[in-house]
Amino acid sequence: MENPSVKSLVARRSKVLSQHSPLFYDQPLHLVKGEGVWLFDYQGRRYLDVYNNVPHVGHCNPRVVEAMRQQASTLNIHTRYLHQNIVDYVERLTATFDLSLSMAMLTCTGSEANELALRMARHYSGAMGVIVTDCAYHGNTEAVAELGTAFMPDSKTTKRVKAFASPDSYRGLANVKEKDLADAYGSQVQRAIDEFHDEGIGVAAILVCPAFANEGLLDLPKGFLENAVAKVRRAGGLFIADEVQVGFGRTGRHMWAHQQYGVTPDIVTLGKPMGNGYPLAGVVARGELIEQFSQHAMYFNTFGGTPVACAIGMAVLDVLEHDNLLENAIKTGGYVKDQLVALQRRHAIIGDVRDQGLFFAVELVKDRQNKDPAIDEANRVINLMRNHGVLISTIGKYQSILKVRPPMPFYQEHAELFISTLDKVLQIVDSETPL
Amino acid sequence: MENPSVKSLVARRSKVLSQHSPLFYDQPLHLVKGEGVWLFDYQGRRYLDVYNNVPHVGHCNPRVVEAMRQQASTLNIHTRYLHQNIVDYVERLTATFDLSLSMAMLTCTGSEANELALRMARHYSGAMGVIVTDCAYHGNTEAVAELGTAFMPDSKTTKRVKAFASPDSYRGLANVKEKDLADAYGSQVQRAIDEFHDEGIGVAAILVCPAFANEGLLDLPKGFLENAVAKVRRAGGLFIADEVQVGFGRTGRHMWAHQQYGVTPDIVTLGKPMGNGYPLAGVVARGELIEQFSQHAMYFNTFGGTPVACAIGMAVLDVLEHDNLLENAIKTGGYVKDQLVALQRRHAIIGDVRDQGLFFAVELVKDRQNKDPAIDEANRVINLMRNHGVLISTIGKYQSILKVRPPMPFYQEHAELFISTLDKVLQIVDSETPL
Repeated sequence: MENPSVKSLVARRSKVLSQHSPLFYDQPLHLVKGEGVWLFDYQGRRYLDVYNNVPHVGHCNPRVVEAMRQQASTLNIHTRYLHQNIVDYVERLTATFDLSLSMAMLTCTGSEANELALRMARHYSGAMGVIVTDCAYHGNTEAVAELGTAFMPDSKTTKRVKAFASPDSYRGLANVKEKDLADAYGSQVQRAIDEFHDEGIGVAAILVCPAFANEGLLDLPKGFLENAVAKVRRAGGLFIADEVQVGFGRTGRHMWAHQQYGVTPDIVTLGKPMGNGYPLAGVVARGELIEQFSQHAMYFNTFGGTPVACAIGMAVLDVLEHDNLLENAIKTGGYVKDQLVALQRRHAIIGDVRDQGLFFAVELVKDRQNKDPAIDEANRVINLMRNHGVLISTIGKYQSILKVRPPMPFYQEHAELFISTLDKVLQIVDSETPL
Repeated sequence: MENPSVKSLVARRSKVLSQHSPLFYDQPLHLVKGEGVWLFDYQGRRYLDVYNNVPHVGHCNPRVVEAMRQQASTLNIHTRYLHQNIVDYVERLTATFDLSLSMAMLTCTGSEANELALRMARHYSGAMGVIVTDCAYHGNTEAVAELGTAFMPDSKTTKRVKAFASPDSYRGLANVKEKDLADAYGSQVQRAIDEFHDEGIGVAAILVCPAFANEGLLDLPKGFLENAVAKVRRAGGLFIADEVQVGFGRTGRHMWAHQQYGVTPDIVTLGKPMGNGYPLAGVVARGELIEQFSQHAMYFNTFGGTPVACAIGMAVLDVLEHDNLLENAIKTGGYVKDQLVALQRRHAIIGDVRDQGLFFAVELVKDRQNKDPAIDEANRVINLMRNHGVLISTIGKYQSILKVRPPMPFYQEHAELFISTLDKVLQIVDSETPL
């Protein structure tokens, strides 16, 4: 493989993909190889990947690649022919959910899964309104881009979507005491329901990531989600849990992030980690919802649920189980959490540390009293981390929260390298930041 | 692999995918293996595949599988890191289009490609209306399901879509002479434009498959498409050519079906054959449209344009070129066309035969004078063909047209088997049909 300079590759890329096609980092990374939690650039430099959750069981996992190769050499065909793989896979997949979530429809992307969930919820409820947080992103098609209150411009123009303030125990709401936070956020959900009702739009669903990851991996005020869902259900709407980012054991204690709460979704959407990079996604839902929608809409997805897709999905589940990766998420995740809390004691810029298994949010603030988001500093940190060989990113309303979300085979030695590098980088940023 | 009976597999499938999940044929086919133009069921029975265009360069093409395996073992990552594959691939892909179509955005599915095309056209034009035929299908997400006048119920309820009668030289329009057909169909397009204008919706685009495949692989009245597009452009809208079904050399004479006309699209959408079964699709468009939309929408597709997707796309182009498959589409396609015309002389049920390279429409009619569609007979033919080991399907407004669309490595010996089997099956159907 030839190694054109990064500059000339960027120039060629801009010409055929546009200059606005997004790239990470001030200095884009030109990668050529991946293995486990490691990525390598065209000069052979190694980076610890503490960002990518798509390669869930590790970059280029050999068991997953072999499953793909084997099935792709044997048969790949759409689902209007009978094949055993989709039946075996969906049986195994649905068995990891509450009994009520008994059926699935497979798609290729999380956007398609959320599309399908919305179409199902709107068909079932006869209503059009969808309630999301004020920092939501659920995909890139028209109907789900409408939900993108985080940064998608199309969310500004629709009447079918209403947002409530992200339920954030750390930042709270002005003039609301901590013990009243759940009710205060809940009343925003109720207001959305009432407005939809008054406008004749009605409520089809509340759609949230159950770990509120894009919002900053929030610690929810206790009881908030259960009560919000109850309000929506009383108004005839459904609860859609978007597990595209946080599913498949990321949180360690459960296979699905919603299982930490006392409420079961009507529809769950799956994606990113599901095929370890192969475009595999889907919807798991109450059987009656899928029966009803399938009868209505004759839904068919050409590449969804093919023998290759399902063989890969099965291999991902095999590796998760065989390598005890949920257990590792708790063990290594606990270590990382402890170390981040230790860093917090030494770096005033760290306002809060939150964790769910192998997912961490490190909230950077200008000062701990006012909690002003340290936006420039967060951007500086992720670029310095990249330059020091560790890949992370930012999340949250202000992009002031470090997003730490490695592939699942992330062990003690990787954690140590991540923590020591972050310590080093924070020292640099501390020294640059005016007192 | 165990071989459960078809019955028990169908029962398990219904339980987890719903009883409405679509299956082909009165007796579903339980397949286990594919190779070139052949498929094999769980009992080892062989079927000639004269239907599937997704395995474009043949089922389980070894060069495509090897390209997949090799890249999947090396690196697979999203497009916010630099990688050479996407640049190489998109340069090669856009080089097959008119110079004006200079940029691309890659997605996973044709539905996502049409979604993106609609979002681009609506953003560019500031209008919402889309004009399609009365027998359209362009995908399964909300915004493209709206376009599905063929059978998607959601198309009935939207104000953003208007349909014109499929421009059909064979069936024509009541009380319109053949020489006036282009104008008559064109005036329907003009009416849609005028209505959108009066309703304050405006015209964003006309979106059609340039071979009018779903409509029955129609022979267009000469000049119709060029004039219809001119009308739409005068009203501020764009021309979107959906090449998801008929692109990548299917028609033999051109790489893209729209290239047979005297008008270049503003946006072209690609899908099914693009990755030979791997979920690879995309949009090729005028550079300014992609620049403008990318700047507006920050579009990102997690699995779109990954190194693996692009390695596979490149391998498909390699095989098309190396094996001279466009040339074969003309050669074998010409033979099949001649043989179908010969069958037409012997079977009164064949009202018309239309072809474009390796795509054929065999229109079955109750009698050649009235051209009443032979709906039941068409269904009987495809089921008998299946029982005789040859896979085809139906298309058209009445599903009365045989859809014949094999993988591209379809050669003389395959064509002979297809024709002789069709002859045999038509004899059976002839003998069953009351005179």
